[in-house]
Amino acid sequence: MKKAVCIISGGMDSTLCAYLAKNEGYEIIGLHFDYNQRTMEKERECFNKICDDLRVLKREILDVGFISQIGANALTDINLEIPKNSSSNEIPITYVPFRNGIFLSIAAALAEKEDCEAIFIGVVEEDSSGYPDCKDEFIKSMQNSINLGRVKKCDIKMPLVHLNKSQIVQKALNLGVPLEKTWSCYENNDKACGVCDSCRLRLKGFKKAGFKDKISYL
Amino acid sequence: MKKAVCIISGGMDSTLCAYLAKNEGYEIIGLHFDYNQRTMEKERECFNKICDDLRVLKREILDVGFISQIGANALTDINLEIPKNSSSNEIPITYVPFRNGIFLSIAAALAEKEDCEAIFIGVVEEDSSGYPDCKDEFIKSMQNSINLGRVKKCDIKMPLVHLNKSQIVQKALNLGVPLEKTWSCYENNDKACGVCDSCRLRLKGFKKAGFKDKISYL
Repeated sequence: MKKAVCIISGGMDSTLCAYLAKNEGYEIIGLHFDYNQRTMEKERECFNKICDDLRVLKREILDVGFISQIGANALTDINLEIPKNSSSNEIPITYVPFRNGIFLSIAAALAEKEDCEAIFIGVVEEDSSGYPDCKDEFIKSMQNSINLGRVKKCDIKMPLVHLNKSQIVQKALNLGVPLEKTWSCYENNDKACGVCDSCRLRLKGFKKAGFKDKISYL
Repeated sequence: MKKAVCIISGGMDSTLCAYLAKNEGYEIIGLHFDYNQRTMEKERECFNKICDDLRVLKREILDVGFISQIGANALTDINLEIPKNSSSNEIPITYVPFRNGIFLSIAAALAEKEDCEAIFIGVVEEDSSGYPDCKDEFIKSMQNSINLGRVKKCDIKMPLVHLNKSQIVQKALNLGVPLEKTWSCYENNDKACGVCDSCRLRLKGFKKAGFKDKISYL
């Protein structure tokens, strides 16, 4: 059976991405990162629920706490305020420098060890927050780097990269993906805040797709 | 003053590389990785000695222990034997999957935060152990990936990539680099073993350059 490392944060995008991998017939190795981000426990819980749903047997939760040691982002630095209304022309302070480069490099190492032929990552280029490490061109370059820097070749799959949030919601619900088990909010409350950039993107996606988001909001 | 992140393992190559960065007029941010490798304490001690020598004020020692969690290499897995005589046609078991990809990605994050215009890495293509992540072409591809995946541009400098070990020894000693403060051996003994692949490369380099290695051997 062909195998793939799926990077699963516990949000909607990476969750749909993992379901697509499953539907393509891959045996999934679930990869999740802890980096002392505000919502670390919630994201980890979502990761495990999604892996349970997908019957993922092999899970790796890796500690990349050095990301918070490097800092310079509002997801790990609680002294920085989570933005509520970033303009689309600027990179918001929730940008974690080169995060997907780090995540893909680690996924490449794990995939090489586990003899996987693919890595799935749920990056979204257009309807994201303008993060440079979510772009198609960047991921393709990392694909090239990984094939040059490892012994074996491997494909990076990014099936969501050119979808917008409403298409993601639509596609996920059509496939029966349990979006109510995912977490998107940047803030660490019992319920999602509904007003941070990430909640706003999520809610806009549901609204445009014509569905109701079943998670609780403050 | 222009700034650079220098990846410094504590071996000869990365040490010479850091001296070259200093000579080029960079203010150095020293970056070192702990990953539960056999010689972790020794390498960290060498890193600090070299940073002292170079008067590096800003040092980051980052925990990338997930590398040993992923495993599949003899540097972190003490159940695997350190090879003493690898042929140059095979990738030895001391190969850590995509290690330089991971290190460069993290260096890219740190360099972006610290507003550095360069990253120095002491990779050596020809006279190394055949690791794919030490090749010129790979590093150039990572350079492209980093420029696409970050907000700002940054140069990766690899001044040693086309030198062999004897040229490295020669160049280092000509510049007064204290090679006696570096550690190369894969084994964790008080003195270097003198017979692992890494010791053999080092000793061959000194011999061919016509110098005596001042570190102690078993």
